[in-house]
Amino acid sequence: LNPALSGERFVVVYHLRGTREEATAKAEDICLEDTVELPLDLVPDGPIRSEILGRVENIRPISGDVFEARISFAVETTAHELTQLLNIAFGNISLKPGLRIERFEFPDNLLESFPGPRFGRDGWRKMLGAALRPLLCSAIKPMGMSAHECADLAGRLALGGIDIIKDDHGLTDQPFCRFEERVGRCAEAIQKANAETGMKCVYMANVTAPQDEVFHRARVAKNAGAGALLISPGLTGYDMMRLLAEDDDIDMPIMCHPAFQGSFVTHPENGISHHALFAQLARLAGADATIFPNYGGRFSFTREECAKIALETQGPMGHIKPIFPTPAGGMTLQRIADMARVYSGEVIYLIGGGLQRHETDLIEACRDFRRMAERSIMNDDARRP
Amino acid sequence: LNPALSGERFVVVYHLRGTREEATAKAEDICLEDTVELPLDLVPDGPIRSEILGRVENIRPISGDVFEARISFAVETTAHELTQLLNIAFGNISLKPGLRIERFEFPDNLLESFPGPRFGRDGWRKMLGAALRPLLCSAIKPMGMSAHECADLAGRLALGGIDIIKDDHGLTDQPFCRFEERVGRCAEAIQKANAETGMKCVYMANVTAPQDEVFHRARVAKNAGAGALLISPGLTGYDMMRLLAEDDDIDMPIMCHPAFQGSFVTHPENGISHHALFAQLARLAGADATIFPNYGGRFSFTREECAKIALETQGPMGHIKPIFPTPAGGMTLQRIADMARVYSGEVIYLIGGGLQRHETDLIEACRDFRRMAERSIMNDDARRP
Repeated sequence: LNPALSGERFVVVYHLRGTREEATAKAEDICLEDTVELPLDLVPDGPIRSEILGRVENIRPISGDVFEARISFAVETTAHELTQLLNIAFGNISLKPGLRIERFEFPDNLLESFPGPRFGRDGWRKMLGAALRPLLCSAIKPMGMSAHECADLAGRLALGGIDIIKDDHGLTDQPFCRFEERVGRCAEAIQKANAETGMKCVYMANVTAPQDEVFHRARVAKNAGAGALLISPGLTGYDMMRLLAEDDDIDMPIMCHPAFQGSFVTHPENGISHHALFAQLARLAGADATIFPNYGGRFSFTREECAKIALETQGPMGHIKPIFPTPAGGMTLQRIADMARVYSGEVIYLIGGGLQRHETDLIEACRDFRRMAERSIMNDDARRP
Repeated sequence: LNPALSGERFVVVYHLRGTREEATAKAEDICLEDTVELPLDLVPDGPIRSEILGRVENIRPISGDVFEARISFAVETTAHELTQLLNIAFGNISLKPGLRIERFEFPDNLLESFPGPRFGRDGWRKMLGAALRPLLCSAIKPMGMSAHECADLAGRLALGGIDIIKDDHGLTDQPFCRFEERVGRCAEAIQKANAETGMKCVYMANVTAPQDEVFHRARVAKNAGAGALLISPGLTGYDMMRLLAEDDDIDMPIMCHPAFQGSFVTHPENGISHHALFAQLARLAGADATIFPNYGGRFSFTREECAKIALETQGPMGHIKPIFPTPAGGMTLQRIADMARVYSGEVIYLIGGGLQRHETDLIEACRDFRRMAERSIMNDDARRP
């Protein structure tokens, strides 16, 4: 064994479409394609063949024409880099149809390289002074409002008792609403509302931005009094979120948004499963909460897919903290009772347009939202798991 | 009109699956989802409704159940940021099935915000001293080799007359082959070979890396004598490539690799077309050459898809330079004559394993590669377009 190789391996579970023979060939292809990138007969004997090459641990049928393959890779092939870990799991092989990542199994010596979420569920609850209930989030929208209008909306949402008021993920630094002005005014409006209500609402600024702007905006947001950050790792790369989460000076909880990531999940035979992408990778990359389209809303995720995302936000993952699922997308207050059966009380409910429909009495609509969220955990079906 | 809005718009062409009524509904949904993110009845009158909201310019049928919609967006919604441009074009809407970006149409006042490729086709040709012929590229692989072994392979490829010798895209900074040592040894081996042959082979270092390492590695590579950089924007985010390309100190041509991007193209009804992704976006984000799986190799791209990629690498795009298509993936020397009919002489041929099959006489295999590439443009079908 090469002294640089520990023998430790991580596992990626793939679902492969085809007959047993086809699935076996696909599994063997994954082993080659994402490591040595050579035909098997050209792979040298010794540690390259025995350790560097991916290894099919087992294959089993899970439905008529889908097989599940557990494939292991040497931890060192990732160089303990998030970018290269994703490359090993789904680099070249992403270009071949009929295979999908179902989940990841990471050993401790790989997880140790990734601090993960800095706050996690407990961090959010402590910051917001909310021990048990679902947390409430709403969005500053539509794009096109001035910074003044954004702040006015933020202040009213805060007066209504929303916990987290986020920039819509499309608000960046547009000429009609500059980042610095918006962030300053919104944070101020929310602090003013908090002084009135005695609550602990936080403003969450969107720092999805050019690579050389992300940290600058995060610092501007922090200095202005923002309490959390929003980022879309599909746009910035996952590793940018990891870097933000690890930064001791930034030191704010992070929520991730699925923009530009839909192609990974829209076809059931390809891509990455909802829970591996929106829960496992989000946690590994340092998100404290993960937004995804709720079932039954204006997107196409199923109730079962959403339940699996929620499960993996708290599944065993070494030292990596559990994070909050944040279902969103065309939600209304009427859906909360049903959602509580899926998410229990361990959730951030994100309702945007559904509150704005009550524009004439937005503050009262927010209070209804809060009452319904609190009431949702009073029944047996929705206790903290 | 809000004074911050110029009235200039850019167009995204989508292919929408369904009946005319369904396609029309999808087009209207795109207009909302990727801008204001509110139901239409909640969108305020005035500039938000008339300018910020996406606008369906036209819809026409292109096959039995596919319609093409040209949708325009105000240039200012992008904040002239690449991350936000991608968000407008394919942010939330990526999460809905049955729609695909076919191509982009960017007006000059948007393109002016993006310098694009620093070198382009002419830059590569000047650097490599190759005025007309196809350029030749090969890869240092398999992962698992020591830096010494990498350099030995690189040196032999250079002696054989390969123009660009790239790190395999999975070589980063693994403990069994550290970046700095590999880059130093490979660049040295290639310089030594050049001294012997009188040729101008360049070493291309892979700088796909953690966010806070990319520029450091690029500088290390440059100082060591590398002549070009490889990056996988699916892993680092497109904007990292843009930033590298714009950097006056780095000042090296960039080739991009499609790792982790397959899900955008594997299903014909979803995602982004091959040419919009691998040609238009690659150019906009500063790539000087773009790797994609060649037709008939071990991936599933069709000849027509590859031809369209090649076409868009030189299509009109304001001041943005044409770049080289770089077909790869299980290619062999025998395929070059046919490929010349698709790519003409304006191509970088990337052959990795196909050369290593001739391990006992690798240098001679490289010379064959060069002869066949040169010969490929001697016939009428494959003149420079």
